[in-house]
Amino acid sequence: MSHPHRFFAPYDEITVARVPLPPEEAHHALRVARLKQGDRVSVINGRGDEISGTLMAPGRRDAFVEVLERRHCSPPRVAVTLAPGGLHQDKLQQEIIRRAVETGVSRVCFWQADHSQKSIAFQERWLRTAVESCKQCGRFYLPVIDTAPSLEAFLEQYSGPGIIGLPEADPTAPVTVELTDRLAVLVGPEGDFSTREKAIAADFGMAPVSLGGYVYRSETAAAFLMTLVADRLGELGPALTVTSKVCSGEGME
Amino acid sequence: MSHPHRFFAPYDEITVARVPLPPEEAHHALRVARLKQGDRVSVINGRGDEISGTLMAPGRRDAFVEVLERRHCSPPRVAVTLAPGGLHQDKLQQEIIRRAVETGVSRVCFWQADHSQKSIAFQERWLRTAVESCKQCGRFYLPVIDTAPSLEAFLEQYSGPGIIGLPEADPTAPVTVELTDRLAVLVGPEGDFSTREKAIAADFGMAPVSLGGYVYRSETAAAFLMTLVADRLGELGPALTVTSKVCSGEGME
Repeated sequence: MSHPHRFFAPYDEITVARVPLPPEEAHHALRVARLKQGDRVSVINGRGDEISGTLMAPGRRDAFVEVLERRHCSPPRVAVTLAPGGLHQDKLQQEIIRRAVETGVSRVCFWQADHSQKSIAFQERWLRTAVESCKQCGRFYLPVIDTAPSLEAFLEQYSGPGIIGLPEADPTAPVTVELTDRLAVLVGPEGDFSTREKAIAADFGMAPVSLGGYVYRSETAAAFLMTLVADRLGELGPALTVTSKVCSGEGME
Repeated sequence: MSHPHRFFAPYDEITVARVPLPPEEAHHALRVARLKQGDRVSVINGRGDEISGTLMAPGRRDAFVEVLERRHCSPPRVAVTLAPGGLHQDKLQQEIIRRAVETGVSRVCFWQADHSQKSIAFQERWLRTAVESCKQCGRFYLPVIDTAPSLEAFLEQYSGPGIIGLPEADPTAPVTVELTDRLAVLVGPEGDFSTREKAIAADFGMAPVSLGGYVYRSETAAAFLMTLVADRLGELGPALTVTSKVCSGEGME
């Protein structure tokens, strides 16, 4: 690992001189990672700040970090909201949250879909997953994670441009989205959008994206769309260009 | 679902008039999906052919498909080989194989890395995962899945251009790859590439890609790179363009 151990603490002040680690982070530092007094660590607060410093362990369970350096990272200039229709499985929700952090998404809003087989309720562990993912990949912003009682409730509250993953969208039509300071990415639940929800999305001006006409699982479609959007916004580094003299793409005969 | 139930059978001849389903596919058709004689189904062979027709069930366990229509899909014009360093966990291998199918990858070659904690051995279930993924998303080509005893063994046998995911690569330098009929995508194992392996990849002309300088898990880096490559090759449908008057990307202060 090229970076020191990274921890999370929801500290407010960027002028703080020492940052106490929350109990579970202190436990991880002292008991799991077995770090020692004086080891170099960093602490993020999920709101753009990172301090690095040395670990102090005055007790068996307590730990704080003596601040040596601070860094602040501006939020992404375009706030991406991922809005997946309610998924049945906890592990798929976690998978989506991890990928959202990894692609720099600012908000994940799970909405109750017409075809959802169970109701969506906010889970504390979603935040823990997001925190772990930030620590792991090195992103500085925790996304907001919330729920909406329906697609229209989400769209009425969100106001801005967006795209919607629809396998039946024209797989040959290029899609252009003009951004403001935000972009929504709508993904259907496991049973797909209902006809009613598709009409609502169209009313709100969401642009259909086909992903080539294949039928992808919800979490796969979400991952593809988050990756493509992050790429276009420069969140995955500089452009990868592939130049080719041969034509690409599959062709039906 | 907008498509009929899809099955897999490794039939050779595209002129065949009826396709017997392999035992486990017949079981799935009759016992799990509970399809009936005369139901419309499709069968892919993983080599570009799909037939659609009606299910015939002459016995309790036997089933074949009476062919009504055939379709052939040309292979991708650029054969992408994903070459991940050996992963420890079976579920991560499966995750990578699924994503490889979903992005139209032609070959997955797991290589034994200097930092692999166990040795890589070919697993029959990898093929099953690839077959299930083809059936699910509607891609017509099964990737070849194999292993190599080392990165250099893979690269000596593979001959062509490629990219390598390296978090320490310059996160501001655009990467341009000139394609022939193939492209390799190299991803490190959980413990990262060894210094030796990085030097070998450089010797073989693999272009470093940073993904923005974040530290991603192996399977995440693989998913990102496969998605970006599939996008550039037109395998995920037409281009998504995001036009923006605001600057994008995070900035350190």
